[in-house]
Amino acid sequence: MDLSNRIEARIDRALVDAGCGIAPAKLTAALTYACKPGGARIRPTILMSVALACGDINPKAADTAAAALELIHCASLVHDDLPAFDDADIRRGKPSVHKAFSEPLAILAGDSLIIKAFEILARIPDPATAISLTKILSIRSGMPNGICAGQGWESEQHIDLFAYHKAKTGALFIAATQMGAVASGQDPEQWEDLGARIGEAFQIADDLRDTLYDTESLGKPAGQDEIHDRPNAVSQLGVEGASERLKNILAAAIASIPACPGEAVLAHMVRKTAENLTPVEMTRRTVPSE
Amino acid sequence: MDLSNRIEARIDRALVDAGCGIAPAKLTAALTYACKPGGARIRPTILMSVALACGDINPKAADTAAAALELIHCASLVHDDLPAFDDADIRRGKPSVHKAFSEPLAILAGDSLIIKAFEILARIPDPATAISLTKILSIRSGMPNGICAGQGWESEQHIDLFAYHKAKTGALFIAATQMGAVASGQDPEQWEDLGARIGEAFQIADDLRDTLYDTESLGKPAGQDEIHDRPNAVSQLGVEGASERLKNILAAAIASIPACPGEAVLAHMVRKTAENLTPVEMTRRTVPSE
Repeated sequence: MDLSNRIEARIDRALVDAGCGIAPAKLTAALTYACKPGGARIRPTILMSVALACGDINPKAADTAAAALELIHCASLVHDDLPAFDDADIRRGKPSVHKAFSEPLAILAGDSLIIKAFEILARIPDPATAISLTKILSIRSGMPNGICAGQGWESEQHIDLFAYHKAKTGALFIAATQMGAVASGQDPEQWEDLGARIGEAFQIADDLRDTLYDTESLGKPAGQDEIHDRPNAVSQLGVEGASERLKNILAAAIASIPACPGEAVLAHMVRKTAENLTPVEMTRRTVPSE
Repeated sequence: MDLSNRIEARIDRALVDAGCGIAPAKLTAALTYACKPGGARIRPTILMSVALACGDINPKAADTAAAALELIHCASLVHDDLPAFDDADIRRGKPSVHKAFSEPLAILAGDSLIIKAFEILARIPDPATAISLTKILSIRSGMPNGICAGQGWESEQHIDLFAYHKAKTGALFIAATQMGAVASGQDPEQWEDLGARIGEAFQIADDLRDTLYDTESLGKPAGQDEIHDRPNAVSQLGVEGASERLKNILAAAIASIPACPGEAVLAHMVRKTAENLTPVEMTRRTVPSE
C-alpha cells in the first residue's frame, strides 16, 4: 500500500470506530464530513515519510500516528472555520462543517476528533511508543506551545510573532517529523528542526497563496490575513522577499535532516512538498534545485 | 493532604503548566477561569474515593487521573455554555467563559483543557497505567459513547434516551470509578456499574434541581431542560416518581461496590455525594439510610 492509502485506511478505521454501535447519526456524519475527502494530507505524509526514512519498523504505529495527527488537524480546521473565528463558509471546496451541519455539531465534531486522536494512539500495542506519541501530539496541539496557543495569540493585543507562528503552524509539522521518528523507534529530539523549518516554509507559502490566489483557486476564503489584520510574511517582506525567504528555509530544512537510511528519499519528499505548496507561478523561483 | 487538596493541587499544576513560558495571556487566564474556583468536584472526588478504597497504591497516578477527568468536565461545561448550545451567561455563579473572555477564547479553552487532560495522563511514569487511564478517559469523553456523543444526541430528531443519558451524564462517572480503580492497580471492568449508577442518580438529581430551583440558587440558568425541550426525569415521572427512582438507584449503586479494603468508606462517600446532589427539601425522602 502506498503512503496515501495507508493514511486514508487508518483515518477511515478511526471514523468507523467513532460511529459504531448506537451513535448519534448527524455527529457521526459530521466527523466523516470533516475528514473526507481530505486535503493534501501534508502532515501525515511527512510523518509517514520520516517513519519510512527511519526504517518503518512499526508500520501500524506509524499509520496510527499519521491518522491521529490528521484528526487533530481536521479538528482545528472545523473549529477555525466557526463564525467566532474565520466565519468561513467553505473549506476544501465544499461547505464548512458548521454550514453543512450546524454550529453545535461543528464544535462537537472538533472535540470528538481531538479525543479520538488520543484514543487511537492509546490503542497502539506498545505502551512506551503510545505514550511518547501522545506526549508529542498533546504538546504540539495544546497550551502553551501547540496550535491552540497559536490561535490564542490572535486574541492578544501584542503578539509574540515568533511564538505565534511556531505554535500556529509549526507545531503540527514538528509533531509530524517527531512522531514519524518515534513510530520507527528513533529519538524525537533531533527531528524537531526539520519539522520547524517545514512549518515555517508552509506558513510563508500559505501567506503567498492567501495574497496571490482567489477564493475559488484556494477552496477557502482568500485574503483572510488582510481581513483579520493578521501578521503575514507577504505584508512584511513583499512577494519577492517572502519567496526568497521560502527558498532559504527549504534549503535549511533539507540540510537539517538527521542521518538515517532514507535521507535522500526524505529530501526528495521535502522538495515535492514544497512544490505542491508553492503558488504555481513562483515554482521556479522558490523551490531549491535538486 | 485531604482529597480536595490533592485534587486542587494537581489541577493547579496542570494550569501552571498550560501557561508556562511564552503563552498567550488571555487564553492562559481563560483556562484558569474555567477551572477555578471549581464546583463540587464530584467526579474527581469519586475517582479519588475509589482509588483510596482500593488502597491508593499509586497516589500520583490517582491525583493526575482525577485532575485529567476534571479538566475534561470543565472543558465540556465551557463548550456547553456557548451561544450555539445553552447560551448560558452564568456558570458557578460568575459569567461563563465566553461572556468573561470571548467566544473564540472559550472554544480554545475547551480544546486546550481536553488536550491538557491527555497530556498529563501521558506524563504518569508507569506507561501501562497511563495508557489504561487514557483509554478510559477517551472512550468516556468522545464518540460514540462519551459526553460528546451525549451532546450529539441533542441534535437528533429521534433520541435514544438510554444511550443519551448514559453518554451525556453517565460516561464521566463511569470514567471516575474505573480510573480510580486503575490508578490503584485494579481491573476497571467491575467498577463500571457503580459509575453508571452514580451517573443515573446524578442525572435525576440534576433534573430535580433544574425543576425545583431558581437561577440564583443553581448558579446557572434554571429551567433549561424545558426551554430546550430536553428529556427530563421529572417531566416523565413527576417530582415524587423521580425522587423515588433516585432513592432506588442510590441503593443499587451502593450494592454494586466491588469487594475492596475500603468498601464501607466508599459506601459512605456515595451517600454523602447523594446528599450533596439532592435538593435540600427532599433530602429525607431520597437518601438511602445508613
